[in-house]
Amino acid sequence: MDARGRVGRNVRKLRMARALSQEELAHQADVHQAYLSGVERGKRNASVLVLDRIAKALGVDIDRLFTRDE
Amino acid sequence: MDARGRVGRNVRKLRMARALSQEELAHQADVHQAYLSGVERGKRNASVLVLDRIAKALGVDIDRLFTRDE
Repeated sequence: MDARGRVGRNVRKLRMARALSQEELAHQADVHQAYLSGVERGKRNASVLVLDRIAKALGVDIDRLFTRDE
Repeated sequence: MDARGRVGRNVRKLRMARALSQEELAHQADVHQAYLSGVERGKRNASVLVLDRIAKALGVDIDRLFTRDE
């Protein structure tokens, strides 16, 4: 799994732990739902600022999106 | 400092600890030196894949680029 896959898996786990839909998280992070879906599937190569918005919407620091064993 | 600034500071610290020039690190990570300079100054909004290349060239996991107290 490359770094995108790791980030995507972490985002999905954190989102599900908060019982948020992709649509809800996408809205809170100000990204399109289809884009968020691509991030979660490891298909999108997101930037630092987009990931920081997603992290803030999840209530975590951005470093949590990069942890290896989340 | 936003997340770009944190990443940039970490990249610069890790690069200097390895006694690498920006030119050397840029070459190893396959980015332009001017781009790397922008990343280090927190001006560039790098993507996951570019940061992963920079991390690998520094010999660290990408999560090290996001630590808060590096």
